[in-house]
This record gives sequence, C-alpha cells and structure tokens, in this order.
Amino acid sequence: MISGNSIKHIKSLGSKKKRNIEREFIVEGAKTVAELLRSEMKIKKIYALKSWIHNNAKKFQGIDIQEIDENDMQKISVMQTAPEVLAEVFYKEEKKFQIEPDKLYLCLDSVQDPGNFGTILRIANWFGINTLIASNDCVDFYNSKVVQASMGSVFRVDVFYCDLPSTLKKALEMQLPVYGTFLNGKNIYTEKLSSNGIIVLGNEGHGILPETEPFINKKIFIPTGSDARTAPESLNVSTAAAIVCSEFFRSCPKKFCQV
Amino acid sequence: MISGNSIKHIKSLGSKKKRNIEREFIVEGAKTVAELLRSEMKIKKIYALKSWIHNNAKKFQGIDIQEIDENDMQKISVMQTAPEVLAEVFYKEEKKFQIEPDKLYLCLDSVQDPGNFGTILRIANWFGINTLIASNDCVDFYNSKVVQASMGSVFRVDVFYCDLPSTLKKALEMQLPVYGTFLNGKNIYTEKLSSNGIIVLGNEGHGILPETEPFINKKIFIPTGSDARTAPESLNVSTAAAIVCSEFFRSCPKKFCQV
Repeated sequence: MISGNSIKHIKSLGSKKKRNIEREFIVEGAKTVAELLRSEMKIKKIYALKSWIHNNAKKFQGIDIQEIDENDMQKISVMQTAPEVLAEVFYKEEKKFQIEPDKLYLCLDSVQDPGNFGTILRIANWFGINTLIASNDCVDFYNSKVVQASMGSVFRVDVFYCDLPSTLKKALEMQLPVYGTFLNGKNIYTEKLSSNGIIVLGNEGHGILPETEPFINKKIFIPTGSDARTAPESLNVSTAAAIVCSEFFRSCPKKFCQV
Repeated sequence: MISGNSIKHIKSLGSKKKRNIEREFIVEGAKTVAELLRSEMKIKKIYALKSWIHNNAKKFQGIDIQEIDENDMQKISVMQTAPEVLAEVFYKEEKKFQIEPDKLYLCLDSVQDPGNFGTILRIANWFGINTLIASNDCVDFYNSKVVQASMGSVFRVDVFYCDLPSTLKKALEMQLPVYGTFLNGKNIYTEKLSSNGIIVLGNEGHGILPETEPFINKKIFIPTGSDARTAPESLNVSTAAAIVCSEFFRSCPKKFCQV
C-alpha cells in the first residue's frame, strides 16, 4: 500500500519546477529501470510489482524498495499501461560546462518534443558523443517522456543548458567549427567533416533560429533523392540527427570524446 | 453544424476494419492537408474552420467542403488539440505488386508503432525510395497516426503488405540482394551497397523475426562509437532506417527508383 503523501510527491515530479526544487525525477518501465540499475545514477526509492521484484532481486541490493500492486502503480505512473516498476532518482551531480577543443558536441536549438530529445540522446550515445548542449528553451531532459524515449541514454550523456548564441560565440573564438543544417548548406556527403566542434540541430517547425544562425560557420545539408515535386519539405529533427551523426562518425575514424 | 451521422461515420474510420470496407481514411491538420492538396489523392470531403477556409480558398476548387466550428472539430478529431482542418480521403487505387529488379525497396518486418512507420515513410520519400514493402502484421498505413507522422509522404510512397518470407524468397530467386540489420552483420560503412534489392528493417522489440532471417543474404550493422559498457543496446527502428537509407543513397549515386 502506497501512502497518499508518496503518491502526491511522485505526481508532483511531473512538474519541472518541482523537480528542480527536489532535485529528483521519475524513471518508469522495466527496460529503462534496467538501464538505470546498470548506470551510476543514485536511486532514492523503487516501487515495483511483486513479479518484478521476484525477477530482479539480485540487481537492487542496498536500494530502498517497496512492493505495490497494479492499482497503486496506475496511480503513480504517467504511462498509458502501468509499468512493472517505477523509480525515484536523484539528479546527476551538476558539472561545470566548458567547451573542450578536441571534443565533438551535439547541440539542440529549441527542440521542444520530448520524444525527439530522448531519441537524439540515444543517437548521440550510440555514436559516442557524450555531451549534448541544449538551448535554455529546449524541453527538460528529466521530463519523463525524454527519459523514456532515450531508453537509458539520458543516464550516460551529459546535457548542458545554456544561452546558445553566447556559447557558440565562444566556440568560434576558440576557432572551432560550428556546423548546422540548412537548406542552402553544403552536401554533407562530400563536405570535409571534423572530429571536433559543435553540430547544431534546429527546432521541429522552424529549424535553426535566426538568432543562432550568425554563429554557424559550416552550413551543411542532407541531399534528397526525390525531385522537388515529390520530396518532403524537410526531415524530422531526430532523423536529421541520426544521419548527421552517422556521417560524422563514418568520416572521422577517431573517437569524438577522447580528450 | 455537423450531423450526428457524419460524426459517427468519421469516428468509425478510426477502425482499420471499417476503413477497409469504406475504402476511406482521415487526414488531419493544416500541414498534412496541405500535402494532401498537392498530391494526387482523391478527396471525398473537407471539414474546416472558417479561418482555414479563408486562407486556403484557392487550393480546394471543386472539392466538397463544409465549414464547422471548433466544438464540432473537437468531436471528429483524434488529435489532442483540434486541428483547423480534417479531410475524408479515398484509398489509393490498388496496384499489383511485382518486384522490379532494378529498384531499391525498403521493407518493414512487423513494425507496430504508427510513429515509426510514418517516420520511415518520410525517410524513404526523402531518399527517393518510392515503394515500401510491409509484412502483413505491420501497422496499417492508413492509420491516422501513421498519416500524421509521415507528414504527407504516405501520399507519395506506395505501400504493399505481403507475406514477407515468400516475397523475399522470390527476390532471392531473382538473384537480388536482400539486406537486413543484425548485431553480427558487416559494417555498413565499408560494405559495398547495391542500388537495387531490398532492405529489411525489424520490429521495435525483437528486430528481424526468425522466420524472416533465412531470406536475408546480406547482413549489415551500424557500428557504435561507444564501448560496450556505455553504448545503448540498440537504435530505434526509424533511426536505423534513416542511417541505412542515407548510407545507401550516399554510396549509390544513381537514383533508386529509375527503372
């Protein structure tokens, strides 16, 4: 039986404001919690069904765990189907962000959709990009839909929110390449790509914002194989992220994040 | 004012069974309807708010259109926020599917998520792949979430549902390469890729199914830049589709669908 206060507390963490006060967020579902347990994140408490506890007994030694029934799980979960397990997790320790000249960063300009943000974290993680820069108006990466879509990559990729123009200005002053996708950019397949610098991807509806554009010194473009009459207007931002990261990875044999 | 019968009819098209009887489906939202209007699809009727009609008067000459208010739009829409416009559209004319030896096909094995299916249609369309093969248990491409996620590409890419093993068997008999993504496949960046044949992508949770695997003669893999301890277990199927299509497109300069 879960207490009314616990239900209230967990549900309150759906709000970014409350999360930032408590410095806690929620991780739901067997797959994402499995990733959580093999990460270095600090877990405050796990709520789980009997079946999950039975199958995972070895994995959560030393963690405060409470068995609840499906009815209670439904009350605290935001998922359509109540998951087997839900965890209250402490925020990562805050690190100070400083651009390292030899690293490659992915950077999101006003990406609002949690599914896109989470998918992009997973893509960055796949290709060994371990730091993501996000403009202050991007969706919060502790949002439960971001956590879900990232399939655990949120635990492994560091995300820094910042004022994008001033951060990119600093990168240019350090002589780093700042890439961005534009319709009038150069063909990504033939352009020489770097193994360091920053790759900026834009907002779902508007692309890279006008106030960000002046700080991009390498405009790139993913060519289409359809003619203008039959081609889609654009690609989804997470699709573009996948193609761009793949292309940087393919053309730069050294690892992006070895410093 | 919309009639009760019309509301009932439109809502019934949320069911695949009913869609197949009526041979009609629903397209919602200003962006997707704009794509609909520039496509060759046959529209049965448009329901729209006054503002949309005012702004689009030139685009729908000869189409049966009814002005409704937001309240009525909310009743017939499945979107969270009622759209400005909703269209009842006739199914495409059915074509007979036959593998053409010089074309490149994308093929989905048991892809269930409408968002993934729609995103993959948009990716195929971007790279000039105009035919998608889907196993019979994939989500229906007239599902409104597929239509939405495809951003209109559903109007431009042909989808054929079929029994996958027997279709792929036929491709092998025609000496065509049948690609599929597997963890033990060959590096997609260094493997020679063909400009014809079939690329199979697997189910969200299980990848390519065991009954499909014997018919794949070119196993490929997207390498990861993270080490085993920190890499995600897999990529989302639409992310994989983006990378694989991009790589085929980059390495095969000729268009995939010129026959």
